[in-house]
Amino acid sequence: MGMNFLVGQSGGPTAVINSSLAGVYATARQSGAGKIYGMQYGIQGLLDEKLVDLDEKLGSNLSIELLKRTPSSYLGSCRYKLPTPEENEAVYHKLFALFAKYEIDAVLYIGGNDSMDTIAKLSAYGASIGSPIRFIGVPKTIDNDLMLTDHTPGFASAGKFIATITKELICDSNVYDLQSVTVAEIMGRHAGWLAACASLAKGDDCDGPDMILLPEVAFSTSRFLEQVEKIRREKNNIIIAASEGVKTEDGTFLCDLGGESGPLDAFGHKAALSGTSRYLAGLIQQHLGCKTRAIEFSTLQRCASHLTSRIDINESFQVGGAAVQAALNGETGRMSAIIRQSNVPYQSICQTVDVQAVANKEKVIPRSWISEDGTQLTAEFEAYARPLIQGEQLPIFVNGVPQHIRL
Amino acid sequence: MGMNFLVGQSGGPTAVINSSLAGVYATARQSGAGKIYGMQYGIQGLLDEKLVDLDEKLGSNLSIELLKRTPSSYLGSCRYKLPTPEENEAVYHKLFALFAKYEIDAVLYIGGNDSMDTIAKLSAYGASIGSPIRFIGVPKTIDNDLMLTDHTPGFASAGKFIATITKELICDSNVYDLQSVTVAEIMGRHAGWLAACASLAKGDDCDGPDMILLPEVAFSTSRFLEQVEKIRREKNNIIIAASEGVKTEDGTFLCDLGGESGPLDAFGHKAALSGTSRYLAGLIQQHLGCKTRAIEFSTLQRCASHLTSRIDINESFQVGGAAVQAALNGETGRMSAIIRQSNVPYQSICQTVDVQAVANKEKVIPRSWISEDGTQLTAEFEAYARPLIQGEQLPIFVNGVPQHIRL
Repeated sequence: MGMNFLVGQSGGPTAVINSSLAGVYATARQSGAGKIYGMQYGIQGLLDEKLVDLDEKLGSNLSIELLKRTPSSYLGSCRYKLPTPEENEAVYHKLFALFAKYEIDAVLYIGGNDSMDTIAKLSAYGASIGSPIRFIGVPKTIDNDLMLTDHTPGFASAGKFIATITKELICDSNVYDLQSVTVAEIMGRHAGWLAACASLAKGDDCDGPDMILLPEVAFSTSRFLEQVEKIRREKNNIIIAASEGVKTEDGTFLCDLGGESGPLDAFGHKAALSGTSRYLAGLIQQHLGCKTRAIEFSTLQRCASHLTSRIDINESFQVGGAAVQAALNGETGRMSAIIRQSNVPYQSICQTVDVQAVANKEKVIPRSWISEDGTQLTAEFEAYARPLIQGEQLPIFVNGVPQHIRL
Repeated sequence: MGMNFLVGQSGGPTAVINSSLAGVYATARQSGAGKIYGMQYGIQGLLDEKLVDLDEKLGSNLSIELLKRTPSSYLGSCRYKLPTPEENEAVYHKLFALFAKYEIDAVLYIGGNDSMDTIAKLSAYGASIGSPIRFIGVPKTIDNDLMLTDHTPGFASAGKFIATITKELICDSNVYDLQSVTVAEIMGRHAGWLAACASLAKGDDCDGPDMILLPEVAFSTSRFLEQVEKIRREKNNIIIAASEGVKTEDGTFLCDLGGESGPLDAFGHKAALSGTSRYLAGLIQQHLGCKTRAIEFSTLQRCASHLTSRIDINESFQVGGAAVQAALNGETGRMSAIIRQSNVPYQSICQTVDVQAVANKEKVIPRSWISEDGTQLTAEFEAYARPLIQGEQLPIFVNGVPQHIRL
């Protein structure tokens, strides 16, 4: 009798988190698993016993292909912070009772660093009570801010989309023979990985953004205006790619300087930063007096499954499958990670790492990958990121729009 | 000796305006044209004698393919309002002197209704002075608001992109087991054609937007809140697609109610409406107290050449070619238009129409194509729009991003 699996998705959606789910399901099924359950709406839904039998939902090969092409979390998600056992042991009693009821042998959780925190806590608690259940994390986040994995599934597709629309936006901005400044706002709370991908727009047919503002480089209004003024003397249409997380030396987000602030989420994070591009456009308008516009790339960055990286789709599938394999091998408290083997040609493998060392930490862009003046990325970043956006996975178009699968 | 052509692009960019330029160039070249000049930055650039010899730029077949895949206006654009001869005849003297200098036989102008106004004025002036030069308009606008053409080149690709990202956004919005309202703001100044395309997201895998707000239906706050409240009783996550041009009974744009207003362009149009989605999200937040977010689809709608409609790309090319043919036939003061032959199967042909009857007019969605309560589109709209978004033209990906061509 094969192992019974329970898999959930958590945190913000991405364009490829369902490819990891497909990797978990397909690998578990091919490995002779018993039951494969999905938790609806993550751990929070599990606490309400919202489980689905994935064999009933994903039984056909076409379903797997559609799942790989469906953005957001097929199973639904949550932003539930699992308390420590000291804070609330009853939650653990309830969860482990549910695991027992459904005879779960392995719990796989696909998500970002908060989700890895959940896996770390569950595996630690499981060990403390001598449970044989294996807890494995599957990384996911467009933000690329997880430790111990070369990059995170979801990052490359978001990066490819950002590079593509930045190129298109630059074409759009160059259209009039007028002075103009366009500020594009890109996701990324504390790490600038996604904004940095705007640099990948650059090629023989495109100059790329004139300036990229990252959370890793403290923002100075006077230096910024000097830099814009300098570029303005050389060219007509200026493009600035700005991370939503750009902040001043004292850590104040630009969007808060603009007076626009939002509520905190369950993890104490700012739920939705926005206003950075409008703040910057306002600043330029006020000081330099030229035409400006602010564009937020918005939620599309994380859900544009119509344009994904084939490398990312494949790796997302692989980390899901590798997590199943780790559970079969008896591992627990681990996260399936991507380990880069070489840049040229690009090759990677999956290995597991200690989930405790991933939980609640954030990886930022090394300062040496950013130009001295803080406004461009170096060749090291290009060598790191360019291979990840290679190849495309085409949607299955039905009636003119990409077909998805829903629960 | 073949005819000499001069072609320009004007008004806001689209994802396929360059496909029309490709159609003009390729058809003129194959028809044995003499010189084929492009005006840089439209009529405004022409007045500064900014001309390029297109044979030097577009000589290879690969260039034509890249041109069809490059968004925005390859030649550059302008928003120049040609004065009447009564207002400023010197401009006409200058333009016709330039036509004489370069021995131009036909002037083709790719643009929206303001550009058709330019062609109407030039052809009328030409006739008044007995000039043999032919002036032909080539329609272009994502807004689909031109008269006498079944639809406008550019509309279908923008509509396909909007339908696609609306589908993706709906997946994204359904991810949490929470009450939420998402308001997506879609381009369209006085006509709701683009916002209406959000309805094309609907299919067996997607319910489509719960409500679509159009400029064609006067906005009432109380009715709107009632409608949202009614939907909220039935489902958790609500999606509203709103045209940027939604206005109240007395004609006030919602974005102006929000206190955000913008400057007028050279045609007296509001240059950039924005704030409609934020206004609506604020309204819902205030009255219904649930989680809301406002998303602007922004400039991407008109420059997302990575996802275009194959029908649109082909027709854009054809109207360009048909304009060349009209000039060769000795026509002037005409616009090349798309005439639909049938819906099933979808077939269309190009014919010329009187450009005077197109200039400065706007076509809106028939009220009978909008549901009685004003929040959905009917089967008539579906029958009209669905065929137009069929098929895709794939980008040529180089180094992970779509390759473009630039002047």
